[in-house]
Amino acid sequence: MAATCNAIVHIQEPFCKAEKKDLGVTKAVFYPWRNTNSIKLKKRSFSVIASGTSPLNIDTINGRKVNGTYVREAAIIGNKISEPHKESGVDTPLHAILLGRFVEQRFVYRQTFIIRSYEIGPDKTATMETLMNLLQETALNHVTSSGLAGNGFGATREMSLRKLIWVVTRIHIQVQRYSSWGDVVEIDTWVDAAGKNGMRRDWIIRDYHTQEIITRASSTWVIMNQETRRLSKIPEQVREEVIPFYLNRLAIAPEKNDNEKIDKLTDKTAERIRSGLAPRWSDMDANQHVNNVKYIGWILESVPINVLENYDLTSMTLEYRRECRQSNLLESLTTSSETLTEDSNSYNNRRPDLEFTHLLRMLADKAEIVRARTKWHSKQKQQE
Amino acid sequence: MAATCNAIVHIQEPFCKAEKKDLGVTKAVFYPWRNTNSIKLKKRSFSVIASGTSPLNIDTINGRKVNGTYVREAAIIGNKISEPHKESGVDTPLHAILLGRFVEQRFVYRQTFIIRSYEIGPDKTATMETLMNLLQETALNHVTSSGLAGNGFGATREMSLRKLIWVVTRIHIQVQRYSSWGDVVEIDTWVDAAGKNGMRRDWIIRDYHTQEIITRASSTWVIMNQETRRLSKIPEQVREEVIPFYLNRLAIAPEKNDNEKIDKLTDKTAERIRSGLAPRWSDMDANQHVNNVKYIGWILESVPINVLENYDLTSMTLEYRRECRQSNLLESLTTSSETLTEDSNSYNNRRPDLEFTHLLRMLADKAEIVRARTKWHSKQKQQE
Repeated sequence: MAATCNAIVHIQEPFCKAEKKDLGVTKAVFYPWRNTNSIKLKKRSFSVIASGTSPLNIDTINGRKVNGTYVREAAIIGNKISEPHKESGVDTPLHAILLGRFVEQRFVYRQTFIIRSYEIGPDKTATMETLMNLLQETALNHVTSSGLAGNGFGATREMSLRKLIWVVTRIHIQVQRYSSWGDVVEIDTWVDAAGKNGMRRDWIIRDYHTQEIITRASSTWVIMNQETRRLSKIPEQVREEVIPFYLNRLAIAPEKNDNEKIDKLTDKTAERIRSGLAPRWSDMDANQHVNNVKYIGWILESVPINVLENYDLTSMTLEYRRECRQSNLLESLTTSSETLTEDSNSYNNRRPDLEFTHLLRMLADKAEIVRARTKWHSKQKQQE
Repeated sequence: MAATCNAIVHIQEPFCKAEKKDLGVTKAVFYPWRNTNSIKLKKRSFSVIASGTSPLNIDTINGRKVNGTYVREAAIIGNKISEPHKESGVDTPLHAILLGRFVEQRFVYRQTFIIRSYEIGPDKTATMETLMNLLQETALNHVTSSGLAGNGFGATREMSLRKLIWVVTRIHIQVQRYSSWGDVVEIDTWVDAAGKNGMRRDWIIRDYHTQEIITRASSTWVIMNQETRRLSKIPEQVREEVIPFYLNRLAIAPEKNDNEKIDKLTDKTAERIRSGLAPRWSDMDANQHVNNVKYIGWILESVPINVLENYDLTSMTLEYRRECRQSNLLESLTTSSETLTEDSNSYNNRRPDLEFTHLLRMLADKAEIVRARTKWHSKQKQQE
């Protein structure tokens, strides 16, 4: 019972023979579990589809096409551990830098990114959409690297068996400083319980070089049945999968969180309505849905251009209400919050911070898709 | 005359003193030139803005904010070479993987990317926009790492001094195979002369693990005055900067290139017109213009949904005619090429390949922005 890891993975004969009997020529199960510090073995099964004769090539792990990068995580099988071959095309730094790695006794997943040229906006810093994309990417790589991944985005194996998916209900992000093109950021993420049937996922973004925390974010997830689209309790088997990862730590202190409910905007209360927003084909993600992150662009479409140009978006809270498909035409509503007037008194001659409430809704039946609240800080004020 | 490289770069005293006299406390010039194989020194000047007293911190290189990542390239000053400190927060693999590196006697620049979760489309493979973004990123890092970079995107120092910028006039990309989420790709790029006043930039994308070439691309660039927006000849000083990088190699063999001119579509010749396309704030790039890559999404908006769902985009040629700003409303025109009918005869019962001609134009005055030609290959046919 031993496996070797290579650019293309080979399962050696003893293992294949043992498994062929039970699972057929092209399927095998093995048990990968790797702790970055001490190598441990736990009973977590991994479904592998392999092809070829001898040695077999692994083509998929848990239904997902794999190449050598992922197979590092699968280099432990049965009750024996085999270190990946050194001559592998994938070296540890490549894997760690491109995909991330576990830190802090495997409770925190950490990935490093460089801000790319096409990820910055007109003010030459990373956009809010970029930050949210990077948070999503780190979260998904966390699930993949944990060895729990089932089919689809972020679902565990036990969830996939039950056709369950994670659905985000709320996300709150606080940005201290936006990074520029070429800046390197380090993102930490971890999960915890949220009530009885929810999961909380937090993130911290640091400037890689100074280690200063520049962004904090927290999100809440519930489980939905992919077919009925109804919310579900967390099945016991799923809870058992995720509980070992739970870390009781908050990225945002409770008193600094944005806990207030977001008011529903209407035609009467909205100061600005931007209509006829049409999702493009290129806005669709692998689930044929509009990706959560794309909503941000539409929400910002009803924010005054003067604000987009002269203010930094320092805080954003999104309450997701309903999915959106490509055929849906949308409307973006925005109104400035009343707190604006109160707050501005205390700022004397300085330009006040701004706060807006938003609603993204279907054009046809006015059904709510996302409520949002944004806070803005004058770029000028930061330079004073 | 020695410099050390650290997470924050320090220029040591001897160097600073020498330069302070000529350039003031906060400015210095040094001469970095690094060959990945043998370390050489050439006379290529680098304008550095530094802050602090002793040691000075480098804040910008050629007008661009820097951190330790870039400074690796700037670790050579005067006529002495100092190896970057080992204790630097930036290790070579991080730099090489996140930013890329020179190969083949510094004629080719190579960068490795992993396809991220948000870079794939509904068919779960990287989108054409993703590929074009990665090509752009590699090209810009090529310029940055060459030590030639001036202000702005991809302009050399001598260009920046003359307020000149590169403008793409044509890009052609051929995709053999689209990568999936988690696949690692390796992109090579290099430049060559194109006629008297143009530059050609080619790219090859390989599957990192199999080293199979999966995409080839070629583009033509000319120089424009940033203020007058008029085309310019290549100044002699700019030619001298770029000529040492020219490599006489073609990513796409001439007989396989798409050399045919693209017909201009009109209201009469277009089969499909998708009107009222509005650039979003989030489509703007650091030049306050719509990024070239964003055009692709709008072009695809007038392609029949059946084609988007059932065919792979295997070839795309873009002829850029005019810039687009956020206030411009756009129209996307598409028509199937006549070759479709001829070709389809030879395919018998199989679904034929498709070819389309496109035009993206201003809604108001019908002015052309981009002409395009796309070729499509049935997904079904590939599986047969």
